[in-house]
Parts: sequence; structure tokens; C-alpha cells
Amino acid sequence: MPRPIEYASAPPEVRVVFEDIMRTRGVPDVNNFWKYLANDPKTLRRTWESLKEVMAPGALDPLVKEMIYIAVSITNGCEYCIASHIAAARKRGMTDEMFAELVAVVGMANETNRLVQAWGVPVDEQFRR
Amino acid sequence: MPRPIEYASAPPEVRVVFEDIMRTRGVPDVNNFWKYLANDPKTLRRTWESLKEVMAPGALDPLVKEMIYIAVSITNGCEYCIASHIAAARKRGMTDEMFAELVAVVGMANETNRLVQAWGVPVDEQFRR
Amino acid sequence: MPRPIEYASAPPEVRVVFEDIMRTRGVPDVNNFWKYLANDPKTLRRTWESLKEVMAPGALDPLVKEMIYIAVSITNGCEYCIASHIAAARKRGMTDEMFAELVAVVGMANETNRLVQAWGVPVDEQFRR
Amino acid sequence: MPRPIEYASAPPEVRVVFEDIMRTRGVPDVNNFWKYLANDPKTLRRTWESLKEVMAPGALDPLVKEMIYIAVSITNGCEYCIASHIAAARKRGMTDEMFAELVAVVGMANETNRLVQAWGVPVDEQFRR
Amino acid sequence: MPRPIEYASAPPEVRVVFEDIMRTRGVPDVNNFWKYLANDPKTLRRTWESLKEVMAPGALDPLVKEMIYIAVSITNGCEYCIASHIAAARKRGMTDEMFAELVAVVGMANETNRLVQAWGVPVDEQFRR
Amino acid sequence: MPRPIEYASAPPEVRVVFEDIMRTRGVPDVNNFWKYLANDPKTLRRTWESLKEVMAPGALDPLVKEMIYIAVSITNGCEYCIASHIAAARKRGMTDEMFAELVAVVGMANETNRLVQAWGVPVDEQFRR
Repeated sequence: MPRPIEYASAPPEVRVVFEDIMRTRGVPDVNNFWKYLANDPKTLRRTWESLKEVMAPGALDPLVKEMIYIAVSITNGCEYCIASHIAAARKRGMTDEMFAELVAVVGMANETNRLVQAWGVPVDEQFRR
Repeated sequence: MPRPIEYASAPPEVRVVFEDIMRTRGVPDVNNFWKYLANDPKTLRRTWESLKEVMAPGALDPLVKEMIYIAVSITNGCEYCIASHIAAARKRGMTDEMFAELVAVVGMANETNRLVQAWGVPVDEQFRR
Repeated sequence: MPRPIEYASAPPEVRVVFEDIMRTRGVPDVNNFWKYLANDPKTLRRTWESLKEVMAPGALDPLVKEMIYIAVSITNGCEYCIASHIAAARKRGMTDEMFAELVAVVGMANETNRLVQAWGVPVDEQFRR
Repeated sequence: MPRPIEYASAPPEVRVVFEDIMRTRGVPDVNNFWKYLANDPKTLRRTWESLKEVMAPGALDPLVKEMIYIAVSITNGCEYCIASHIAAARKRGMTDEMFAELVAVVGMANETNRLVQAWGVPVDEQFRR
Repeated sequence: MPRPIEYASAPPEVRVVFEDIMRTRGVPDVNNFWKYLANDPKTLRRTWESLKEVMAPGALDPLVKEMIYIAVSITNGCEYCIASHIAAARKRGMTDEMFAELVAVVGMANETNRLVQAWGVPVDEQFRR
Repeated sequence: MPRPIEYASAPPEVRVVFEDIMRTRGVPDVNNFWKYLANDPKTLRRTWESLKEVMAPGALDPLVKEMIYIAVSITNGCEYCIASHIAAARKRGMTDEMFAELVAVVGMANETNRLVQAWGVPVDEQFRR
């Protein structure tokens, strides 16, 4: 059932979103994520509006946001998400050295997260929120 | 069984690590993570050596590394890890605005990771590695 | 090592389970899940007996149960499980619109789960169990 | 840092969202999730708008949506999310029997997801998407 | 809603399971897991029958099985499951040294799992199944 | 970007690690994991040193450690990790029967982990740490 929807055959409400993605990103076509999501035009629109808002420059650098996205995607084991956000981060200036360090941190964090849970470490007084 | 090991009653190989943590971080005591890990001195030493190497300044800013750590910890739902790395990131300059944006990105990434898996999106040719 | 076990070459205790699956579901052959599980006849039998009991009509509609199965499988990122339970749900009447809404809910739930953990939200008094 | 924001002391853009939540749900106060999220007014607004859209009646019954939400939250181990969505589902008519069956399905799905991954089951031809 | 069901006030189909648990394990009372599961007598019975079969001595030593249980529970971050299976493993002879090594392996496995996913490592020809 | 680094074209600091892996394991070449990790020589070295220490014989049998590794990898759904550690465990004597039982335990553990979280089971007094 889920087939990619190409711009040429997309209904108007999908085209509007595709056009905004292409314009905002300066690309000639949208990537597969959006073409599959177009099977559900409401979620397509909502997800794009949210992503545009969340990934916009703000208190955090857009490249930092892309690296956070990669960190989550690695932890969830989502192959597509890792690949597409690596591409996005590279466009924004992520070098091989930066990627290698990012991966090393993600690996360590996943290890120490489990050590904490295994040893049942209680939150220190000074870290309490 | 797992009880925190305090410096005063720690064996020499644990004291050496505790002292290096306190000196490196400029703190008067280590936090609970290390006190519990001290039940396994080999893992204590190895984890501290790895963490020191991975979190050191390099191609990525130390604050960026702390935020990646938080992103992983949120995705894994590790309460202690979230709390302790928020504290570490604050020390390095994370503001309320930066934290709020970080969380927003982590939330969106977890949502879109699932959308990708649900719709079975194949990796675009240009993202292939 | 794990190879699919076909009916023709299956030992008697596997055939008995395969026959019950085919009869219960009205299908001419079992799908790969069962053929691989047949490498462990005890788990094959136990899993089929459990699944038959759990997925039977009861307080919940069988289609609702299939959609819950899909929700878990998306969250775990299990490709086979997503694909096979989408097929099962379609047989029981899941439309494209229903699938799209299901996915949207799963996506949002994964997002808000992380927001809750990131902000350290305590359980409200009225939700306590 | 993250403290709950009460209506009385909330800035106007938070109050507007709180009022819409209270009106839409017919409740005298919002629950902790929204009070904590109010630390990030943009995410508060975006999440509420999204949730209202996603959880609205459509092709799926609102109760079914709440149960899908619970299924995801159990799989992610998010205590707050499980508790708050059980409360929401009960309001919409979930009985003890329905909850028990929902949990049984979620448990089985998590078991069989791992069996699939352990045995390396390939997707059947007829399930391919 | 979910309250623990004590033996004294349990219906007959729950008592039968409780008695089998107490007899099999040689304990004067069942632990909380079973008391809560008793809210759903069918799942109580099915889970106990399955657990008894799966955890019985076979090709693997019962202590090894308990340690595998702990490894999964740490990875899922399930506090109750970690605590109760540590207790069960201790009864079967797990020493402090064994627990420490188990945790170290679980930590490393969670780290390298992410490194694999981050670097997109393809399965070697000789590992293919 | 991430391409496997072969021994012939590897820089000296990578060759040193590759040689130690081949010598320690008695194999003529390293597997893909190490070839990809070689893109980040520091993490390559650190991971190999850690793995060698953690997987060495100690209080736990090396085969038990490999099975714990498999259990974590199944729970995380890491295909490469499952395949490579099954191969390692087979070398150390894991039979088909042992693998089948291991998988059955991992499946059950994932099921009961979710039942615990769904029913909100509190830790029994005697399991408290």
C-alpha cells in the first residue's frame, strides 16, 4: 500500500507542501520521506510545519540540531533517518572528524545509560529538578 | 547489593580514579554514578578513561557533546542520565532556551523515526553510503 | 543456521502446529515467521497457543488488537512485524485512512513520551494508581 | 530548572493554550504534562495543536487512539504516559477487561518482535510493500 | 485500578496459579509481579506456564537464563525486572563478580550496537544466515 | 562517507589494532565492524581495548558473555550485531538447542518487561537494593 507519491501525480494539498519544502531547502525534488508521507496529506503538512519550526535557527545552531537528530536516530536504529540526517548535516558543514566524535559520544551514552540502570544509581541531590 | 562506595572507604584502585575525576572536573566529590560503578573497579577505570577521551574538546564543542548525551538519554528514558547531563551542560553554558530547543528536536526526531518505519521509506539513492 | 522449515520436511510436532495455523486462519501455507520458529518446536507451539488465545475476540475487537500489534512493532522498528501485521489488519478491514491515523498517533506518542522524560514530568495525583 | 507553570502565573501565550485545553477537554485545570511543557511556549502550542488534530475523531474511534497511545507508552516504558493515557482511555469507556487484553497484546507483540529479529525472519513475498 | 491481588482474596483460578508458583519455587508467597498480573487471570496463567517452561533447565543452565533475563531488562530499563531477576540469579549462585561482568558486557553491547548502526556496517559474508 | 578500511591501505595506528585483533582471535582478517570503525582510529583502538578486557575470561564463561551480547543485540534489533555474535558464540560451542533456548528467554523477558510496566508493579521489599 504505501507507495511514494510523485509531485506530478500529487493532489493540490500535497503539492503545496512539496513546493514549500523544495523552496525552503532549495532542492529540485523532495526526498522519499515526504513522498511516502504524502499518502497521509494531513500528517505530511503537520510534520513539515513542525519540522520547519523546530529545525529553524534559534538558540541552537542548525548543524547542532541536525547532529542531535542523528544521535536520536542512531539510538533508535532507524537506518533511513541516520542516512538522511547525515546528508543534511554534511550540507551544513559536518566534517568526518565531527561525525566520528558524534558517533563516539552516542556510543558512550548508550553504554553509560545501561550502567546507570544496571547499578540502580539514584539521582544525586544536586541534580534533582 | 550495589551500595555507593565513598572515597573514605574506597580501595586504592578506586581512589586513584576518584582523584582523577575530582581533579579533572574541579569538584570536591564524585557523583553517585562513579560511587556505584566503584563496585566494579575495572569498569570504573575503563569507563572514566573512555569518557575523558570521548568528552574532551576536539572537532565538536564540549557543550555540543553534552547535548548529544542528553538527546540519547532522553531517547533511552534514563532519568539519572538526563538529570546529570543537564547539570553538566548547564555548567558549560546551556541556557533555558537551548534546552527547550534541544528537547523539541529530540521529540520530533523520535516522531519522524517512527513515521519512517511505519511507512517503510526506502533510503534515497543520494543518501546511500 | 536458521533456515525456514517447510511443511513437507517438518517433523510431526511442527506439522501439528502448522496444520492448526492453516486451519484457524484459512490459509494454504504458514508465513515465514512460523517456518523459522519451527527450528525451535517448543517455542513454535507455545507462541502459537499464546497468540491464538491473545488475539481471539474478547473485550477488544480483533482489528483493534492487530492495530495495537502494529503500534508496538513500529515503536520497536521491527520491519517484518510491521509488514505482516499490516497485512493481517487489512484482511480484517483496516482502510488506508485508518492506517494513516494509526501511524499519526504512534508518531505523536513517541514524540510526547520523550517530552515527558525530558521535562521530568511527575505523575499527577489524579493519575496515580 | 523545569518547574510546572501554573495558569495564574503563566504568560499570555501559555494561557491561551491552557484555556483551549481546558475548554476542549472540559476540565478545570490542565495536567502536569502541559504545565511543564509551558516552559517552552512554542512547543506547548505546537504539541497541543498537533495532539488535538491527531486525536480527533476520524477513521479511528478516539478510544482506539487512546489505546494505541498506551501501547506505545508501555513499549517505551514511560510511566507518566501510561498513567495519563489510561486515565484518558477510562474516561472514553475502557473497561478492566479491555485494559487487560490490551496489555496482553502489547506483551505478546514485544515478545514476537524479538523472536523475529533473533531468527532473522525475511519478509514474505505477499507482505512486501 | 491495578491493585495487587492477595492469595486470601483471590478467586480460585488465581489461587491455583499462586499455589503452583509457591510450590515450584518453594516460597511462602508470590512476588508483586504475580499479584498485579492476577488482575488478568488468563494472562497470569499463560505467563506462568510459559515462564516455567522457558526457565526450566535444558540446554542452558538456569543461572545463565537468569543472567540473560537481566541483560534484556537492563537494556529495556525496567527497574522491577532488573531487581527481581538479580534476586533470582543470586539465589542460583550469581556472585558480585559475575554481576559486575554481566553489567560490563551489557554496557559494551549497547555501545557497539550503536556504533554498528551509526557506521552502517553491512553483514560480513561469513556471518550471513 | 563511511567506507571499510582494508589492512593494505590502513594507516599505522589502524594496522596496529587490526594486527592485535587478528592475533588475539587467530583470524586472517578482521570483520566489517572493525573496518568501518577504522574511519575513527581513536574509537577503533578504545573499543578494541575495552572489548578485549570485557570479553576476556573472568567470573563468567566467554560463551555466556557472547550469549549476553546476543540477548542485548536482539533487544536492540541490531541485525549485524546478532549475526556476528551468533558466529562468535558458535565458535565457542553454542549449539542449536542453546541458541533456541536463549531466544526463547529473550522473547519472554521482553514480554514480561512490558507487563511489569503496563501494570505499574512496584518493587517488592525483599528485592530493594
